[in-house]
Amino acid sequence: MDSDSTPTPIAKGKVYLVGAGPGDPELLTVKAQRLLASAAVILHDDLVPAAILARAGPQAKVVSVGKRYGAEGATQTEINARMIESARRGLEVVRLKGGDPGIFGRLAEEIDALEAAGVNFEVVPGITAGIAAAAALGVSLTDRRKAARVVVVTNHQARAEQSATSTDWRGLIRDDSTLVIYMPGHDLAGLRDELLAADCASDMPAAIVSRASAPNQHYRFTIVGELDKLPPVDSPAVLLIGRSLDRARQRADASAVLALDEAELFLSSL
Amino acid sequence: MDSDSTPTPIAKGKVYLVGAGPGDPELLTVKAQRLLASAAVILHDDLVPAAILARAGPQAKVVSVGKRYGAEGATQTEINARMIESARRGLEVVRLKGGDPGIFGRLAEEIDALEAAGVNFEVVPGITAGIAAAAALGVSLTDRRKAARVVVVTNHQARAEQSATSTDWRGLIRDDSTLVIYMPGHDLAGLRDELLAADCASDMPAAIVSRASAPNQHYRFTIVGELDKLPPVDSPAVLLIGRSLDRARQRADASAVLALDEAELFLSSL
Repeated sequence: MDSDSTPTPIAKGKVYLVGAGPGDPELLTVKAQRLLASAAVILHDDLVPAAILARAGPQAKVVSVGKRYGAEGATQTEINARMIESARRGLEVVRLKGGDPGIFGRLAEEIDALEAAGVNFEVVPGITAGIAAAAALGVSLTDRRKAARVVVVTNHQARAEQSATSTDWRGLIRDDSTLVIYMPGHDLAGLRDELLAADCASDMPAAIVSRASAPNQHYRFTIVGELDKLPPVDSPAVLLIGRSLDRARQRADASAVLALDEAELFLSSL
Repeated sequence: MDSDSTPTPIAKGKVYLVGAGPGDPELLTVKAQRLLASAAVILHDDLVPAAILARAGPQAKVVSVGKRYGAEGATQTEINARMIESARRGLEVVRLKGGDPGIFGRLAEEIDALEAAGVNFEVVPGITAGIAAAAALGVSLTDRRKAARVVVVTNHQARAEQSATSTDWRGLIRDDSTLVIYMPGHDLAGLRDELLAADCASDMPAAIVSRASAPNQHYRFTIVGELDKLPPVDSPAVLLIGRSLDRARQRADASAVLALDEAELFLSSL
């Protein structure tokens, strides 16, 4: 027994801003999995798949606060209010975001709101889509024989003061950089034109990875000059561009040829 | 029973190139933890802490192949040979690397060797130090009110053809970028001079984070103009630079003032 006789204070709530990783439940961190199992309230983005939400404990109130599908979603103000209200009731809250919460996830706005309300919080990092995409392809984004840096960017910059502006690619596109483009969108012809105008080599390797790590993961290699020929892919998708993709692209080409050889062998055996 | 009567082939080995994350065992992915528990052989870098290696199964042969402490470590050729030899014996091999295997980790060289030897491999991503450092500080590297991109780089580029060249900061330093500098080294005065010469604002916020997420994690905020005044920190360390650090820096200053107030209150009560 503690000798202090003051009554136990009402448990103070806390908000964990947690990365759900790229989609595969096994790419949750051990900590994220533990918090999902113990949290009283889980407020999650639409991008978080059901297989991950299934790891919530039976006591958890699981609420989608996604904004992805437009009108149905909660506003940022509503999300903030829900987090704060639950924490003030002494609850353990998990605010679950796809990938890593600090990469293109409005983490800063939510931290500011929690801080202004005097609510305890902690950020639990997650595997971000670009890192998962590179792993899926067997690519080192910093292959030292090819790349000295990684630049992480969105195709169209969503900045507070301008709703959407074109990304300024000059200075980002270099032969010794790997570009990781989140939310590449569907106008890949426009992107190709912008990249070529910024002096990107037309034969620079590129790969689009859709739903990295999820069971329906899909990828395609190409070159910057032929970005417009890629078929549309499902979100979330990441576009990787750089010489560091060279070897993985050769491997993919070799397996495609092998698959073709096998198919021909099979056909000729009929 | 399978109706096929051919004898079971000798199990084919596989090498998992696995990210150990930044240091906290709870920041392992669920998959990394499962593979550590089941692997027959674990070949790990020196940076991987004992608390993570403790998650190896009792059957595992755990071998340090780190090169960090110089002469004692294995060469890259020896590491490759060990992976290949174990896989050919039909074993499940975990090649465990600090952080994410694809960020400054010689992943590409190891994949090339495995591929040339015809050994199956799979990359399991991990939480990289820069992402963990941002989470520890409560920073969004892409706070859209401050930053449109993240640039991940080392202080001195280790490229195959040149043993170490100065990083070219021009084009990387912009008011709307967050810079994540791995292996910042101890010559922070030199780095400050290079950044200022590349037109970085002297008052640009910066933070150094040592051993992010580990029990002995340590961080300090400063500005680029005063980088040289930071005391030396233990490796691994990451240096973050950019306006996206503004709010976290203010929070840290506010807590420092609060701590000072409390100390004064305590002293005055004596």
